[in-house]
Amino acid sequence: MVKQERAARTRETLVRAAAEVFARDGFVLASLTSISRRAGVSNGALHFHFASKQALARAVEDEAAAVVRAIGALARADGPHPLQRLIDATHALMERLDEDVVVRAGFELGSGPPRRDGAADLRGQWQSWVEEVLKDAERDGLLAPGVSAADASVTVVAATVGFEQLGAEDPAWMSAQTLVQFWDLLLPRLAAAEVLNGLQPGGTAAAASRRA
Amino acid sequence: MVKQERAARTRETLVRAAAEVFARDGFVLASLTSISRRAGVSNGALHFHFASKQALARAVEDEAAAVVRAIGALARADGPHPLQRLIDATHALMERLDEDVVVRAGFELGSGPPRRDGAADLRGQWQSWVEEVLKDAERDGLLAPGVSAADASVTVVAATVGFEQLGAEDPAWMSAQTLVQFWDLLLPRLAAAEVLNGLQPGGTAAAASRRA
Repeated sequence: MVKQERAARTRETLVRAAAEVFARDGFVLASLTSISRRAGVSNGALHFHFASKQALARAVEDEAAAVVRAIGALARADGPHPLQRLIDATHALMERLDEDVVVRAGFELGSGPPRRDGAADLRGQWQSWVEEVLKDAERDGLLAPGVSAADASVTVVAATVGFEQLGAEDPAWMSAQTLVQFWDLLLPRLAAAEVLNGLQPGGTAAAASRRA
Repeated sequence: MVKQERAARTRETLVRAAAEVFARDGFVLASLTSISRRAGVSNGALHFHFASKQALARAVEDEAAAVVRAIGALARADGPHPLQRLIDATHALMERLDEDVVVRAGFELGSGPPRRDGAADLRGQWQSWVEEVLKDAERDGLLAPGVSAADASVTVVAATVGFEQLGAEDPAWMSAQTLVQFWDLLLPRLAAAEVLNGLQPGGTAAAASRRA
């Protein structure tokens, strides 16, 4: 039992070290030796857990994908309504991208030149979630007249991917302040008049406390 | 003279071949041999023009930067007013990203892991241009009440960087149709009521014919 716990901890340390090295050097230049050294484990221990650099990249992506799923699930559970859930989820995603190198590396791994075994499609996963929640908003009559869920999805997905990309160079792009500028601009066009005043561009307190 | 022309043509062929190989393999994996082979020239000819892979990358970026400057200059020259110039420039940029591998590779080179000699900052160049034209729009009273040039810049820059990134996987993201969806959503919020009806989300005919 203790042994299993230790193995799980070593695996997690390796995934985090791999994410740090991928984020710094890119997948192609990242070496297994820098990863095991950064994790403070032997090459043998690394190979016990992961057969290859590909397997490590996949583990980073799987962990990032689980975070994106959790953000979607949390935002689904008890948010006031779909538009606020969408706002809350964008804040949660940018916070995790900013703070968690595994999430950041997971997204970046998908944007480089294609890997032989294919990459997990984190952006596609995020896009599907955004489309779904905006369709819910449309169905519930929360979108302004003349605004379609499809048009809104295009803009929200492109802007959030842009924040993620620009944020890799300059974290200010992933800040709550930048997101509030975005939502302040978009919401008066996006939301039906009767829900607009109730929306919080900075995210709800409930979402913030769940994230803390 | 004929010899100079031939040299200039070979150089241009090499820049294009390099862009194709960078776009396909990424900078790190791109080899000088694949580039010279693709260009149909000898390794010696490549080295006559370019001392290193870094130098080739820089030439690709310089050519892409010249295209971005030209888009800005064209859009400045005789567009009807700053907001329409901005719309026209986004269409021109997405067209060039879609059609010209040198422009696409130039942007992509700036988003990978940092190169030793630093990369040209094409996104920064685009961002400065967008900020400037939106400040012009604000000064001319073309923005809707309560909308600042700064908020608008954040959204337009992030969305266009997102289109560029997503378009590398799926060119539909760089299509005129996607951009029209974006502008259809944004313009009623962004533009002052008295200019809104005159704006063409698909770009002006003049801009389209200049691009053709």
